[in-house]
Amino acid sequence: MGKNKITRAEDYSAWYNNLVKDADLAEHAAVKGCMVIKPYGYAIWEAMQKELDQRFKDTGHENAYFPLFVPKSLFEAEEKNAEGFAKECAVVTHYRLKSDEDNPGKLMVDPKAKLEEELIVRPTSEAIIWNTYKNWIQSYRDLPILINQWANVVRWEMRTRLFLRTAEFLWQEGHTAHATKEEAIAETVQMLDVYADFAEKVMAVPVIKGIKTENERFAGAVDTYCIEGLMQDGKALQMGTSHFLGQNFAKAFDVKYVTKENKQEHVWATSWGVSTRLMGALIMVHSDDDGLVLPPKLAPIQVVIVPIYRSDEELELVTKKGDEIFNTLKAAGIRVKFDTRDTHKPGFKFAEYELKGVPLRITVGPRDLANNQIEIARRDNREKSLIDADINSDAINNTLDEIQKGLFDRAKDHQETHITSVDTWDDFKEALETKTGFISAHWDGSGETEQKIKEATKATIRCIPLDNKQEAGACVFSGNPSTQRVLFAKAY
Amino acid sequence: MGKNKITRAEDYSAWYNNLVKDADLAEHAAVKGCMVIKPYGYAIWEAMQKELDQRFKDTGHENAYFPLFVPKSLFEAEEKNAEGFAKECAVVTHYRLKSDEDNPGKLMVDPKAKLEEELIVRPTSEAIIWNTYKNWIQSYRDLPILINQWANVVRWEMRTRLFLRTAEFLWQEGHTAHATKEEAIAETVQMLDVYADFAEKVMAVPVIKGIKTENERFAGAVDTYCIEGLMQDGKALQMGTSHFLGQNFAKAFDVKYVTKENKQEHVWATSWGVSTRLMGALIMVHSDDDGLVLPPKLAPIQVVIVPIYRSDEELELVTKKGDEIFNTLKAAGIRVKFDTRDTHKPGFKFAEYELKGVPLRITVGPRDLANNQIEIARRDNREKSLIDADINSDAINNTLDEIQKGLFDRAKDHQETHITSVDTWDDFKEALETKTGFISAHWDGSGETEQKIKEATKATIRCIPLDNKQEAGACVFSGNPSTQRVLFAKAY
Repeated sequence: MGKNKITRAEDYSAWYNNLVKDADLAEHAAVKGCMVIKPYGYAIWEAMQKELDQRFKDTGHENAYFPLFVPKSLFEAEEKNAEGFAKECAVVTHYRLKSDEDNPGKLMVDPKAKLEEELIVRPTSEAIIWNTYKNWIQSYRDLPILINQWANVVRWEMRTRLFLRTAEFLWQEGHTAHATKEEAIAETVQMLDVYADFAEKVMAVPVIKGIKTENERFAGAVDTYCIEGLMQDGKALQMGTSHFLGQNFAKAFDVKYVTKENKQEHVWATSWGVSTRLMGALIMVHSDDDGLVLPPKLAPIQVVIVPIYRSDEELELVTKKGDEIFNTLKAAGIRVKFDTRDTHKPGFKFAEYELKGVPLRITVGPRDLANNQIEIARRDNREKSLIDADINSDAINNTLDEIQKGLFDRAKDHQETHITSVDTWDDFKEALETKTGFISAHWDGSGETEQKIKEATKATIRCIPLDNKQEAGACVFSGNPSTQRVLFAKAY
Repeated sequence: MGKNKITRAEDYSAWYNNLVKDADLAEHAAVKGCMVIKPYGYAIWEAMQKELDQRFKDTGHENAYFPLFVPKSLFEAEEKNAEGFAKECAVVTHYRLKSDEDNPGKLMVDPKAKLEEELIVRPTSEAIIWNTYKNWIQSYRDLPILINQWANVVRWEMRTRLFLRTAEFLWQEGHTAHATKEEAIAETVQMLDVYADFAEKVMAVPVIKGIKTENERFAGAVDTYCIEGLMQDGKALQMGTSHFLGQNFAKAFDVKYVTKENKQEHVWATSWGVSTRLMGALIMVHSDDDGLVLPPKLAPIQVVIVPIYRSDEELELVTKKGDEIFNTLKAAGIRVKFDTRDTHKPGFKFAEYELKGVPLRITVGPRDLANNQIEIARRDNREKSLIDADINSDAINNTLDEIQKGLFDRAKDHQETHITSVDTWDDFKEALETKTGFISAHWDGSGETEQKIKEATKATIRCIPLDNKQEAGACVFSGNPSTQRVLFAKAY
C-alpha cells in the first residue's frame, strides 16, 4: 500500500480507495465520474467475463451488439423506464466540431450540426433492443430469443466511487423474449441462479438471492430478482439483478407474435445484468490491510516464484530450480510467474505480490534447497510451510482449491454471523447502531413504511429472500401485520 | 439468399447488402448510420477477437479500458489529430432529460443540465490515453507501455454501409509508449505483421503490406503502415493500420521521461487498430452467389450433419449414426452441429447452411449407410464425395485445413492476377476502365499529383508496398522522375 497506510478499521472507505489505486486496478479519469481500468484490474474483469460468458452460452444464449445511442423518441416509449433513467442521461445533440475563429487552434461545437432528434447514450438497452426485436418476432417459431450483450453504458452520477458507481461502466446485459409468462419467469430465475453460482464458485463471495421491493425495482420491470453480498464493513452490495419485465416493453414497442393457435399475443421479456461493480465486491469481501486478496479462479497470477540468493553460484542454483517449478506448473495450466528481476530485493517483491493479492508464493532459496525443500506462503491466511522441492502440480492445485474454498468459507461465516433478527423498532435502531450487517425484520409490505425507515435510519430493504419461511408477525415500524421477514441493511 | 437473388455480376454492392442481411450477420439500426450485429455475425467477430487477442498477448500487450468520452480541451490538444476528426464527432452537451410539460409523457433535454465543457464521444483514443500516460510515465523504468483496448468508437459518417463504414463500430486500438524512436518503429512494424499474419492465416485473406502517402496518413501520425486487401470486385479495402506517432502526442500532452543518463526526453508512441470492417473484407473476399463462404478457422459452425430419412426406421438408423459422428467430431474439438429439426426438409437445410457459409456438410442417409458410407460436401468448391461412415476426425480436420488453404490460395491467385503494371497515363486510364484491381505505376511523390489523379479517376494510392524494389521511372501523371512504383486502386 502507499506510504500512509490506512487500515480497514481506521477508515474503510479510504482503505478501499487506496487499495484500488495502489494495487493498480483503476483510477479516476480526466472525465468527471469516469474511470480508467488499468491492466491488472482489467485482467481480473476479463477472467470474470470469460467465466460468465461460458455460463451464458451453456444456458443457450448468444452474444450480439446493439447501438450505443438511443433516439429520444424510442427512449421515452416505455414511460416508467424512461422516467427512471431520465435524470442521469448523457445526451448527444451535435455531430460536428469546427474551428473556433475567436480562439486559434481551438474547436467549438458547430451550431449548424445540430441533430434533429437528440440521442441518448444508453443507460441500459431495453428500448433500442425491443425496437429491434419488433422486426425479428412474428410467430411462436421465432421464440425464445436469448441474447446477451457485453457493452459500456452511461448513467450520469454525481457521487462516484471507482468500480462501485461510475458514470460509464462496463457490463453485460441479457435481453430475452418468450412466448409465455412462465417461460420468462423461469428464465429470470435461471439467470439469477447463474449469477449466484458465479459469485459463490468463482468470486468466492456468498450471496443472498431475493426479490426487490417495489421501491427498489428496476424501472420498467414487473419483478426484480437480485443477489446481495455483504462487505467486510457490514454494508450490503447489490451484485446483480435479473428482471421479469412482463409485457411492458412488448406493449411499449408493439411486439406481438402469432401463437400456435393463430392468435396475436404480446411477447414476455426478461433482462439481467452484472457490471464492473463486481470488482468492488471482490475487493471489499476478501482483501486485508496489506492489500488485495484474490480467489485463485480470478487471479491473473495464481502462483509467483521468488528467488533468494547472494552469490552467483546461489543464483544459478535457485534459477535452475525456479525454471523447473515454473515449467512444471505452467504445463499443468497454472497461471505462474517467475520473478527474476535483479533490480528488486525479495522483501520488496513479497510486499508487492501481497498488495496484488497473488494467492500463493513460492520462495526458492539456497538454505531450503540444501534440504531439497522450498517454502510456500498462502496469501489468504498467511500460513507458510516447507514442501518437497520436487514440486507436484497436483499438490499446488489442491492448495489453490483450498484457498478458493477457504475464502468462501470465511466470507460465508462473516455473512451468517452478521444477520441480526429483531422484533421491535428499538431493537432495530439499536442493531443498526451497535452492529453491522443485515437486519432481519418484519415489514408490512408498504412502500411508505419502507421510505420512512430509510429516512430515519438510512437502511433500505435489500431483498425479500427467496428461501424465506412464511411466519406471522408485526411490522417493526408500523406494527401492522406481516407474513414474512425481509433483510434490511445500509448499502453501497 | 432472398427471393430476388442478385448475383455478384449483376450488382456487387446489392449482392453484398443482401448477403449481410440474409445470412443474419447485421442490419441497420433505428439510429442513423449505426448497425445491429446479429448473433451469427457477432460469433464470427468473437472468433476474430479471440485470435487477435491471443496474438496481442503473445507479443507482450495487456488489455485495459479508457473512458468513452473525451473532454473537448483534451481532444483539441494534438491539433492535427483534432482537425482530422472534428468534422465527424458526436458531442455530448447535456446530462439530464426532464418531462416536457407541453407534451405529456414525453421528455426533453433539460436546459439547466448543460455541461460546462462538451464531451466528445471518442472517434479514437489517443488524446484520452496520452493524457493518462502522462501520469504513468516518469522514468525509463516505466517504459515501454504496451496496452490494447477493445472498445466502441463513433465517427459520424453520412454514407454508411454495414460493417464497412458505420457511425459506431467495434474495434481494438493498441497504444504503446517507448523510450526510443527505433523501438517505436519496431513496434509499429511488428503489429503490422501481426495483422498481416492474422488476415492471411485466420481470415484466409492475402494482404499487401505498405506505407500510406501523406494524404492518406492517420491524422497525427508520422507514418501510417497498412494492410490492403483486394475484394472480388477488384476494389481495395484498407483492413488495418499501424501508426508510428513519433513524439507528436508526447509533445501535445507533455509526456517526458528521465533517461538512464538522467536527461528529460519526450516519449515515442505508436497506435494500431482493426475493426468490424474486417467482417466486410471476410464476406467480400470469399463469398459467392449462393451465400457466405467462411474459412474454417472463423466459422461458428465448421461441420453440419444433416440427416435424410423417410420412415421411422430410417430415422432411428441415421440418428444413431449422426449422434456418433457428432460425438466423435465434438470430442476432437471441431465445432459441429447435428441438425435434427423435423420441421424442415433436407433441401431447405442444405440451402440454409450454404447461405451461412458452413465449410463442410455431412449428409447421413440410409442409401449411403447401406454401403457404410456418408457424403461430405465442401462449401468452398462444391465438391462432394463419399467417405467411410466410421468417421475419422483427423480426416475431417485435414479437409477443414484444405478448405482454409484453398480459400487463401484462390484469393491469392485473384490478387496476383489483378495487379496491372502501367507506364503511361493513357494506359493508366485504360486499365482503370477495362480492368479491376491494383495498378502499379510510378508516382512523383507529390500530394498534389496524387490529388489530381484521384479527382480524374477516383483511384487513390493504396500504399507504397514495403517490399518495393527501387527502380528509376517517370510519374505516370506528371512525367516527373520517380524512384519506385506505388499501388493505385479504387477503394472502399
